[in-house]
Amino acid sequence: MKTYKIATIPGDGIGKEVVPEAMRVLDTLAELDGNLKFEWEILPWGCDYYLENGEMMPENGLEILKNFDQIFLGSVGMPELVPDHISLWGLLIKIRRGLKQTINIRPAKLLKGLDSPLKNPGEFDIMVVRENSEGEYSDSGGRIHSDADEIAIQNAIFTRKGTERAMRYACDLSNQRSKKVTSATKSNGLSHSMPFWDDVFHDVVADYPSLDQNSVHIDAMAAYMIMKPSEFDVIVASNLFGDILTDIGGAIMGSIGIAPAANLNVSNEFPSMFEPVHGSAPDIAGLGVANPLGQIWTGKLMLDYLGYARLGDHLLEAIEYSLVQGIKTRDLKGQATTKEVTHTIIQYLKTKLE
Amino acid sequence: MKTYKIATIPGDGIGKEVVPEAMRVLDTLAELDGNLKFEWEILPWGCDYYLENGEMMPENGLEILKNFDQIFLGSVGMPELVPDHISLWGLLIKIRRGLKQTINIRPAKLLKGLDSPLKNPGEFDIMVVRENSEGEYSDSGGRIHSDADEIAIQNAIFTRKGTERAMRYACDLSNQRSKKVTSATKSNGLSHSMPFWDDVFHDVVADYPSLDQNSVHIDAMAAYMIMKPSEFDVIVASNLFGDILTDIGGAIMGSIGIAPAANLNVSNEFPSMFEPVHGSAPDIAGLGVANPLGQIWTGKLMLDYLGYARLGDHLLEAIEYSLVQGIKTRDLKGQATTKEVTHTIIQYLKTKLE
Ligand SMILES: CC(C)[C@H](C(=O)O)[C@@H](O)C(=O)O
Ligand SMILES: CC(C)[C@H](C(=O)O)[C@@H](O)C(=O)O
Repeated sequence: MKTYKIATIPGDGIGKEVVPEAMRVLDTLAELDGNLKFEWEILPWGCDYYLENGEMMPENGLEILKNFDQIFLGSVGMPELVPDHISLWGLLIKIRRGLKQTINIRPAKLLKGLDSPLKNPGEFDIMVVRENSEGEYSDSGGRIHSDADEIAIQNAIFTRKGTERAMRYACDLSNQRSKKVTSATKSNGLSHSMPFWDDVFHDVVADYPSLDQNSVHIDAMAAYMIMKPSEFDVIVASNLFGDILTDIGGAIMGSIGIAPAANLNVSNEFPSMFEPVHGSAPDIAGLGVANPLGQIWTGKLMLDYLGYARLGDHLLEAIEYSLVQGIKTRDLKGQATTKEVTHTIIQYLKTKLE
Repeated sequence: MKTYKIATIPGDGIGKEVVPEAMRVLDTLAELDGNLKFEWEILPWGCDYYLENGEMMPENGLEILKNFDQIFLGSVGMPELVPDHISLWGLLIKIRRGLKQTINIRPAKLLKGLDSPLKNPGEFDIMVVRENSEGEYSDSGGRIHSDADEIAIQNAIFTRKGTERAMRYACDLSNQRSKKVTSATKSNGLSHSMPFWDDVFHDVVADYPSLDQNSVHIDAMAAYMIMKPSEFDVIVASNLFGDILTDIGGAIMGSIGIAPAANLNVSNEFPSMFEPVHGSAPDIAGLGVANPLGQIWTGKLMLDYLGYARLGDHLLEAIEYSLVQGIKTRDLKGQATTKEVTHTIIQYLKTKLE
C-alpha cells in the first residue's frame, strides 16, 4: 500500500466546495485501486485566514508544505475584501516560487460532451508548458516621479537555466506525445527577452532532432489557437504568454471553469502543487452549484504525476461521461448541482473498475 | 478641391500587389466625391531596398515622410532574406516611433459575408486602442554572462503621459460609440507596470463619469474575446496586449488577413500611418491572388481619419458586398483574384455613388 500525504488548501470561494468533491473522487479511485491511499490534511489558508491573521498563510507555511508529498489547491481570491496582489502573491505565487515549482502544465483538450464555441474545433489535444518562476513575473521594477512625470518600469528577467528547463520539459513531453513542439515567441517586438528565448529554443531542440519544432509569435499563436487548434500539440511559453494561451485553451474547450493545472517542482526536491485554472467565483460560492470538474481534472494531473496514469485516464473518461450524460452545472448551461456531478463520476468509476 | 499628399510604401511581398489596388479604390471614391484628390508618391522602401542599400529606408527617410499628409503602408518583411528585427525595426517600428505615432487603432467587426470560426459570434464591433510607443516594446534591456549563466532582461517602460494619452483617446472614442471602455490589465501578475496602468486608468475614467468602464486581466480578456466578443466595445491595451488582442480580433472575424490598422500621430504634428495587420505573405506574393481587403479597409481608416467618414462607410459596405457576393480570394476559400475583388468593390461604389 502506497500512501501519499497531500497538503490540501481549499482556499476561497468555490474552492471550499469543489476540493472536498475532488477528494471524494480521488479516494474512490484509490480504494478501487487497492494499493493506493491519500492522507489529506486540510490547511485553512486563504483570504479568511488573512482577514483574521493579516497574512494568507502562516509565516512558516512553506516549511509546513515541505512535509507533504504534494499540494492540492482549490482557488484563491476574494477581490472585494482582499486586493488580488495580496491574496495571490501571499499564497499562490509565493508557493510557486518558494517551492521552486518552475514548470506549469495545462492541457487544453476537446472533451466529449463539452460545447466548444468554435464551429470546427477539430480534435485538439494541447499541452501548454509554461515557465513558472521568472520571465515577465519577476517582480522586479518600480516607479519614479509623481503626477504627470510618473514612470513605471517592469523588468522581465529570463535566465538560460529557467528557460532551458521549461523547454527541455516540453521537448521530453513531446517525445512521449506526437513529437511536435511549438515555441511561443515575440522576438519581432520584444527585442531582448524574446530573441534570447529563441536562441535557447534553438539550442535545446538541437538535442531533439526527431521532434517537429517551430516558433510562432504570440499574436499569431493566439489567433491560430482559434483558427486551427488541432495543429498544436506541446506548446512551450513564457510565464505571461503561457498564462494567456492557457485561458484561450479553456475558452476553445468550451469553459474556462474546467481546465486544470500542475505547478511542478521537476527536481522533486519539494512538493508540486495541483490547482484548477478557474478562480474562486465569489458570486456563486456557497450555493452548491459550482462546477467541480476543474478540480477533479486537477486530480487527474496529480494521479498522472504520481505515476497512476491509468487511473488518471479512467478519471478523464468519467468526466467525459458526466458531460455526455448532460449532468452539467449551470456554467455549462445545465442544472446539476456540484454533488450530482461528483456522484455521476463516482458511479461511473465504480461500475468501470469494481 | 482638397488634395492630400500620401507617402505610399508598398513594402514587401503582397504589399506590392494590394497597395495599388487600394489606391485604385481610393481614387475612385475621390473622383466620385468630386472635391477630394489623392497624390500618391511611391516610396520603394523595404527588404529589396535593404538588400541593395543595407538599410530599409534612406537615412533621411523620416524627414522625407514629414513632407506628406499621411502614410499608406503595405506590409514589411521577407524573413527568408532579412531577419525580422532588421526589417521591422528599420521601417515599421522606426516610423511608428520617429513620427510619434503613439496610438494604434484596430477594429474587429463581424463583417457580412465573412465566416467567423465562432458558432455564436454575436454582432461584435470592437475597436482596440493600443498604446503604440512604449510599454513592453521599449527596446530597453540586454544580456549578461554566457552559456549556462546567461540572463536576458527586457524592461517594459510605462510613462503616465503615454499611458494616459492612450486611455484618453479610448475614452473619447467610447463617447462617440456605445460609451463602454474596457482596460486590459494584468495587475495580479505583473506587479509594477500593471498596477500603474490600473492607477492611470482609474484617474482617467474619473473624468468620464458617463462611461461604463471596467478592467479585465489579459488572460480572461483573451478568453472573453472568444466566448462573448459582443460584450466589448472600445478596449484600451498596452503595446503587447493590444498586439495580441487585435490578432484575436482578426481570428474571430474569420480572417487575420483582413483587419486594418492606423498608427496615429494624435497631435497632427507628423503624418499618421495606415497599414493592414497582415504580413507580406511571401509564399503567395506575385501570384495575383492576395486578398486586398485588409489594404482596402485600411483605406477606410485613412478616410475616416481625414474626415470623410461617409465615404469610409460606403467603402466598408462595398467590402461587405464583395464578401456577400462570394468574390473571395483563396485565403477565404474563394477563387477570386486580387483584381476581381477590387473590381467588384469599385463597381459597387460607382453604382452607389454615381
Ligand atoms: C511585426 C510586429 C513588430 C508588429 C507588432 O507587434 O507591433 C505586428 O505584430 C503588429 O501588430 O503590427
Ligand atoms: C492569478 C494569477 C496571478 C495567475 C497567473 O497569472 O499566473 C492566474 O492567472 C493563473 O494563470 O494561474
